[in-house]
Amino acid sequence: MQQFLDGQARAKSAIQSEFDRIFAGLPSEPVHHAMAHAVLNGGKRLRGFLVLEGARLHGVDPARAILPACAIEALHAYSLVHDDLPCMDDDDLRRGQPTVHVKWDEATAVLAGDALQTLAFELCADPAAGPAEVRADLCLTLARASGAQGMVYGQALDIAAETADTPLTLEQITKLQDGKTGALIQWSAEAGARLAQADVMPLSTYAKALGLAFQIADDILDETGDEAKAGKRLQKDAEAGKATFVSLLGLDGARQRAADLVTQACDALSPYGKQAESLREAARFVISRES
Amino acid sequence: MQQFLDGQARAKSAIQSEFDRIFAGLPSEPVHHAMAHAVLNGGKRLRGFLVLEGARLHGVDPARAILPACAIEALHAYSLVHDDLPCMDDDDLRRGQPTVHVKWDEATAVLAGDALQTLAFELCADPAAGPAEVRADLCLTLARASGAQGMVYGQALDIAAETADTPLTLEQITKLQDGKTGALIQWSAEAGARLAQADVMPLSTYAKALGLAFQIADDILDETGDEAKAGKRLQKDAEAGKATFVSLLGLDGARQRAADLVTQACDALSPYGKQAESLREAARFVISRES
Repeated sequence: MQQFLDGQARAKSAIQSEFDRIFAGLPSEPVHHAMAHAVLNGGKRLRGFLVLEGARLHGVDPARAILPACAIEALHAYSLVHDDLPCMDDDDLRRGQPTVHVKWDEATAVLAGDALQTLAFELCADPAAGPAEVRADLCLTLARASGAQGMVYGQALDIAAETADTPLTLEQITKLQDGKTGALIQWSAEAGARLAQADVMPLSTYAKALGLAFQIADDILDETGDEAKAGKRLQKDAEAGKATFVSLLGLDGARQRAADLVTQACDALSPYGKQAESLREAARFVISRES
Repeated sequence: MQQFLDGQARAKSAIQSEFDRIFAGLPSEPVHHAMAHAVLNGGKRLRGFLVLEGARLHGVDPARAILPACAIEALHAYSLVHDDLPCMDDDDLRRGQPTVHVKWDEATAVLAGDALQTLAFELCADPAAGPAEVRADLCLTLARASGAQGMVYGQALDIAAETADTPLTLEQITKLQDGKTGALIQWSAEAGARLAQADVMPLSTYAKALGLAFQIADDILDETGDEAKAGKRLQKDAEAGKATFVSLLGLDGARQRAADLVTQACDALSPYGKQAESLREAARFVISRES
């Protein structure tokens, strides 16, 4: 696991530095402090790590790759800020810290989330990210992954599931999670190849399996995890009577499915040989994490 | 006013057709219906008109220009959906129709606004909008105009003004409105030159004056307008004790300032000669409108 841990530590540090630079250039209204709170309060930086490691595999200058890495972390942070709102999941805690609408107010949380989404596209379109073809491609694919046919679609299906008469089937949950989580993980893993204008296929196959494994692991964690380690409320899905990968496959079945997906993810990286070991370790980490 | 009215009618029709095409390709969850409701329920299409007319002045194919025209209308619609939320302006009516959170619910309104913002960047990055240089430039400038240093900044200043001990000064209101309204109007007017990779300066000067005139006219309308014609609640600023251009300049002073700005806006278009008459008429319309 050492190569993943080292890569993740490098990613955390580089992303933190870049966000410090970005926020130093912004005005200082509450909405800007709220944006910084949402995006700087730690997290695993898994998405940013995937961007930076994918870029490294293709020999892309880290000074270019840091922009889409921060973009996906800003976009992820926006989705969490809005997801935590009282009208959505109504969460008071995120990574052990008060959520934005608790620390400030709902209006500031709506605006901070909005501006974090905008920031994501600003970073992808930044001239320092590379040739115009790459920047336009990053913007287009990020929009497709996060919008009405991507992440927001997954969230809409999730909301619909809460009031549905019957629990979702495995196929429906897979589609929901593919939008809600999978699309952005896939974008993150593919971004390095996009930066290099190289074939995205190996990283794409890796990411599809990884994204699903990630969500299955999330459901297992929600069922069996420790709230103190996770830094958020658990067992919410079970309480709400929502179908999950665990309720549909059983705990052992879900663990087996996640392990199979990790094998698939690792196999997809064979064109990169040993260079991709940190990404393989990341896949193994995803199903063993405690938060 | 005939050239403006004709151009506006053409813009409305073209934007409507393009959005019909876009929504026909989306899934059919409530969030997608809410997006369509927000973006299709009329409005003046002033921003889309500015994109299309600016593009026409530079000989840009309308099939390319329609994409940023719809992008700015989607972005404007997102800002209205979130602005209308109970935690923000808490408005039940918009253009005489129930607002999204009233017709659906708050969660759907948050998500629909989010996805409309994403759609704006997806449309700017669409390969059909032109060369990659143009598309990356449209994404970058739209993000700067709408994010933490643009529209969201203006909205944050507006929220801060509500709880400030003293009313804003003319300089502060100008800065607030420049973010809240001006930046997107400027982007709209400049987009045609950006599509043609031409000098944006004449349209930029036009748009700066137009944007400020627009906001002064909005304050005049809020003070003197007819709610039935405006399709929304008026005199909210006066009731809230907020400083406006009218409270600071007086009604006559505000009208004079708006008229001066329209003259400035029209003068800036001289490089385009008679071809720009519809944009000059648009500037005159902006200070004479009733909604």
